[in-house]
Amino acid sequence: MSKIVIVGGVAGGATAAARARRLNEDAEIILFERGEYISFANCGLPYYIGGVITERDALLVTTEESFTKRYNVDIRSMTEVMGIDREKKEVEIRDVRTGKTATESYDRLILSPGAEPFRPPIKGIDLPGVFTLRNIPDTDRIKRYVDAKAPKTALVAGAGFIGLEMAENLVERGVATTVVELSDQIMPPLDVEMAAAVETHVKSKGTTVLTSTSVQGIEEADGAYEVLLQNGNGPETRRFDLVLLATGVRPEASLAASAGLDMSDKGGVRVDACMATSDPSVLATGDAVATLDFVSGSEMVIPLAGPANRQGRIAADNASGRRSVYKGTLGTSIAKIFDVNAASTGMSEKRLKAAGIPYKASWTHSGSHAGYYPGAEMMAIKILFAPNDGKLLGAQIVGGKGVDKRTDVLATAIKAGMTVFDLQELELAYAPPFSSAKDPVNIAGYVAGNILMGDVEMVNYEETLDADLENDLILDVRTAEEIEEHGTLDHVLHIPVDELRTRYAEIDSSKRVLVLCAIGLRGYLGYRILKHRGFDVKAVAGGYATLRHMR
Amino acid sequence: MSKIVIVGGVAGGATAAARARRLNEDAEIILFERGEYISFANCGLPYYIGGVITERDALLVTTEESFTKRYNVDIRSMTEVMGIDREKKEVEIRDVRTGKTATESYDRLILSPGAEPFRPPIKGIDLPGVFTLRNIPDTDRIKRYVDAKAPKTALVAGAGFIGLEMAENLVERGVATTVVELSDQIMPPLDVEMAAAVETHVKSKGTTVLTSTSVQGIEEADGAYEVLLQNGNGPETRRFDLVLLATGVRPEASLAASAGLDMSDKGGVRVDACMATSDPSVLATGDAVATLDFVSGSEMVIPLAGPANRQGRIAADNASGRRSVYKGTLGTSIAKIFDVNAASTGMSEKRLKAAGIPYKASWTHSGSHAGYYPGAEMMAIKILFAPNDGKLLGAQIVGGKGVDKRTDVLATAIKAGMTVFDLQELELAYAPPFSSAKDPVNIAGYVAGNILMGDVEMVNYEETLDADLENDLILDVRTAEEIEEHGTLDHVLHIPVDELRTRYAEIDSSKRVLVLCAIGLRGYLGYRILKHRGFDVKAVAGGYATLRHMR
Repeated sequence: MSKIVIVGGVAGGATAAARARRLNEDAEIILFERGEYISFANCGLPYYIGGVITERDALLVTTEESFTKRYNVDIRSMTEVMGIDREKKEVEIRDVRTGKTATESYDRLILSPGAEPFRPPIKGIDLPGVFTLRNIPDTDRIKRYVDAKAPKTALVAGAGFIGLEMAENLVERGVATTVVELSDQIMPPLDVEMAAAVETHVKSKGTTVLTSTSVQGIEEADGAYEVLLQNGNGPETRRFDLVLLATGVRPEASLAASAGLDMSDKGGVRVDACMATSDPSVLATGDAVATLDFVSGSEMVIPLAGPANRQGRIAADNASGRRSVYKGTLGTSIAKIFDVNAASTGMSEKRLKAAGIPYKASWTHSGSHAGYYPGAEMMAIKILFAPNDGKLLGAQIVGGKGVDKRTDVLATAIKAGMTVFDLQELELAYAPPFSSAKDPVNIAGYVAGNILMGDVEMVNYEETLDADLENDLILDVRTAEEIEEHGTLDHVLHIPVDELRTRYAEIDSSKRVLVLCAIGLRGYLGYRILKHRGFDVKAVAGGYATLRHMR
Repeated sequence: MSKIVIVGGVAGGATAAARARRLNEDAEIILFERGEYISFANCGLPYYIGGVITERDALLVTTEESFTKRYNVDIRSMTEVMGIDREKKEVEIRDVRTGKTATESYDRLILSPGAEPFRPPIKGIDLPGVFTLRNIPDTDRIKRYVDAKAPKTALVAGAGFIGLEMAENLVERGVATTVVELSDQIMPPLDVEMAAAVETHVKSKGTTVLTSTSVQGIEEADGAYEVLLQNGNGPETRRFDLVLLATGVRPEASLAASAGLDMSDKGGVRVDACMATSDPSVLATGDAVATLDFVSGSEMVIPLAGPANRQGRIAADNASGRRSVYKGTLGTSIAKIFDVNAASTGMSEKRLKAAGIPYKASWTHSGSHAGYYPGAEMMAIKILFAPNDGKLLGAQIVGGKGVDKRTDVLATAIKAGMTVFDLQELELAYAPPFSSAKDPVNIAGYVAGNILMGDVEMVNYEETLDADLENDLILDVRTAEEIEEHGTLDHVLHIPVDELRTRYAEIDSSKRVLVLCAIGLRGYLGYRILKHRGFDVKAVAGGYATLRHMR
């Protein structure tokens, strides 16, 4: 008879407990949870504060009582695991309420302690109106504060997914919100030009966004908080009624570390593909572990609910004597930020660059469904792929409806080892309310394929904005009406694409011609026409829609 | 210099023309279109009649004039291609307006004539209020009729996607609509129990649905139409103000056939993977051709816009001297029918059965996103997979939001040759507004995997409804409240799953126990508990949610 002890009762831990029971009706399963609640809706917390989720009970995915009944698991909440005696196969536990300690033996131990918010070492971090958000008690505290004090202004430090979701939800509550971010862009999983589109949108909602800015300290003053900010312009103090720190999370790996288990350089517990730590009797899952990046094969720590759940199941399999392997993490993530959805999967351009992995990129813009059916919304798609065979390395999408769908298709394609040519062939569900006969993913595949086949040569937004107008000529092939409406770059030559076959002689053939259009399609056609006429020509990838946020 | 002649200017033909131009600025490209319009929004026609699309111009994706300017293609609308002289490489053309004939030579000929509505050989089919829907003039006729006559009742013959979309759009116009269908279910691409859920919904909208019913003849009587129907109850005459025939389409392959090109037994033009017909100078694309079923490898004729567009591009590649291959058709399709979305990809159970291909099936029910975030809607997912290795063979989804997304993920997975175990591993974009940490596709993979691993044995809806209660016992493990609310089968034994570990002795162990729950999850757990106690037990696949429409 096997005895499985699980530390942590949220995503990975609760999944592991349920799976272990389904695999073995006889097993003894004990789950320790330091907090009051198991299996709560981590990712829903900002929406409860914002009032989108109205019932607090909705956050409790299951209760201790009903989970116990359903799965015959011995759940001990408010019980912290203090140490692991790996030789004796025992954990030392402490009742959080009484302080009483005890030991519990195990055959297999599954660690699922999660991650904790990073608390930057600055002055004022423990003031009453300064919060981090991780669990139900944090949520209760923030919500109580907002309900009671009706703050007029808030500072959110950190412009990752949680920070921006919190900014949105504070705005929903009528709070004027400022987001500061240490790096030079919001939403770090995205590349800068994709994040710029989100930033434009966030600002359009009245939210202030300060990038390349750090929080140096917080002081209470007359019931509000003076926050010392630092950026390229020097220090500055701003006053807020509430401060939320969303500056990332760190694996809660102290238990594993103090038990002498191998740790990754990245900070998480090191596990093998079976989720076993360096001690084969101890497994670990979720935000606390380092796993392999599916694309690059390098170790990484990435806190995501989907992988945590899968790892929990896999750990339970292996703890129950069934071999089951985890194949690495893509890092697929998405956030709804006001009316914009931003998603990413696989590696970003900056990570590829940093890792020295060769890549090419394409940018496309497509409608969520057929333009003639009401309600279509645009999305920008960036895909990254290998320059030799076109194998997909990563994708990012920012836009309205349908961003999640295309992200999921691309995440599936990456997992399958597909190339950009395979994207062309995907046969996706089409009817006017859902997509176009050529889905945005097909289009992305076509454009990337054209690049690899040499049918078009592209310059990206950066090369275009940095064009040396001594030697480069930017040719805008949109209509006069479009340029009037959306603007264009300085010093462009304007010839609509439909007139290019008759007017190409107007172009200075001693210069390199960069063909700019709205989204890239006419740029490609313009490239073909001018190439045929012997010009040194490039198309501007993604057109004006890609570079306008970077001007 | 190469001269490409294209017959047909809608999906495949227009795509081929644009692609051919982009590949070769020098080519001479002529496009013949029998009708007045090129590149119109085929799939949008029902929505214009229904008033969802308000502007007729929106149906014209591009005009002859702008396409000519953009792509330098010689477009000749209202020009029918009457014959092909393959030896001379010439087509005989006829001006539809003047009747004048001429010839035009080609180096490569691309046939993209599409399909035409099947007109059953019955009396009255040419009466003025009896319509088929294929193109803009058909649409104008129907819309004019509806606008002018304000019909109160309509009969739609054929319950495929077009028939049901038209039924919805007629209901939108306030027309009481009856749909008759020859086969025993609506939506033929779906299996019967999945279609049954759609039928329930269509009926809930006040639409009458008569399956296993044929239209025998139509007679005009006092400004309306007496339609003679025939079904198991014998003949019956019903009266309608409008009749729409949506009884499928047939490849328009007469031009190819009379030119002596090889034809498929299925009726379409036979093509190779490069879209070449039996004459290498003549290519063919779209609804007029027979292609290979991606899953089974057998020849099939399936009229879909996505494949037509891809084939058009591939034909243009090959006609331009670039080798490019089409890898077969999955038949991915979707329709919005009132508030329900129904989709299918790959092979259905009935087609697998007919083809003698071994398979297993799973049924699951999942929310479109996290239940604690407002607005989640349920969907039913059926997947079909190989019994040996779990390779995906097909999928069907019926439900609310997010049906299209999961269909696209599954279509991508099938194309990638993935197994149900791969579905478990997919890392899809999760945040509460979009999905759950375990996406519905992951869940489908888990359940299918459990079946293949022998962790659960299932009976399907049919075996459950046909259970022999002498030897079988149906155990309903839902709560009393759920049974009260949703109903259950006759003669069930009721023990909530949470009490099963203590009350299993109440079950007659001489019988085979079929464990029924809401959607299958508790049935699986009940199976595990009872199996452990030595019962002969099966779980009911998909639970009550799957079988309720089949009672």
